[in-house]
Amino acid sequence: MSEALGRRLDHVAIAVRDADQAARWYLDELGMEIVSDEIIESASVRLVGLAPNMRHRAGAGPFEMTMIQLAQPVGAGRVDAFVRDNGEGLHHICFTVDDTPAATAALGGDTRAVFVGGGGRPTCFLQETRNGVLVELAEPVP
Amino acid sequence: MSEALGRRLDHVAIAVRDADQAARWYLDELGMEIVSDEIIESASVRLVGLAPNMRHRAGAGPFEMTMIQLAQPVGAGRVDAFVRDNGEGLHHICFTVDDTPAATAALGGDTRAVFVGGGGRPTCFLQETRNGVLVELAEPVP
Repeated sequence: MSEALGRRLDHVAIAVRDADQAARWYLDELGMEIVSDEIIESASVRLVGLAPNMRHRAGAGPFEMTMIQLAQPVGAGRVDAFVRDNGEGLHHICFTVDDTPAATAALGGDTRAVFVGGGGRPTCFLQETRNGVLVELAEPVP
Repeated sequence: MSEALGRRLDHVAIAVRDADQAARWYLDELGMEIVSDEIIESASVRLVGLAPNMRHRAGAGPFEMTMIQLAQPVGAGRVDAFVRDNGEGLHHICFTVDDTPAATAALGGDTRAVFVGGGGRPTCFLQETRNGVLVELAEPVP
């Protein structure tokens, strides 16, 4: 085990056609809050981050809790292809790591695939799924 | 929004054929720890809970962090059918709620479907998926 690894679950991503529509249930029924909303041009995706509201964070900041990430395609790309092939649904899980390139290398991934992801964070998807699960690594939100 | 809701993400479940095999990567490569391992006879499933190790929990107990749950079928049932139809992969997300029957009712679910799930907790799956995602509700681990 690498010292760069072993961190917490940063977010669970759900591929959706319309993040505004999808967010409503989490906001209205589960009382979550939108903590980020951004477009990652390089991935042709809009990412909306949802966290438990303040009352349920027990003093923790929103980015210290595992978030729900709604990933809406805004052009051709991996998420767009996923929704076309599989419909909406659970897409990937992301773990925080101290150093994305180091962790990617330690896990046998391709460091050339590191990109600037949500929150401006160095981010990488491991090419090889683990038991059918796509795994992403990202540094914590500062 | 109900007062019974709005809590944190308890776990993300991955349907796997062999939880021991699947756990290895999370233990050896991500440095996570097994915090529960039980068979839920009523659901014909073995559930293995994985949490970040102590060093990465910042003082929080293992059950205060969002866990990875490996769900291995041990007989005919929902998880067995999922693996046969879809292969291994992300299966559902679970939110903690103060009162599972009340939260199930507030979310339009069927309270007759409440069962004793992982950790002996009152648990319920909402019949209706949300944007393709199966959602479970469970009371926090005491």
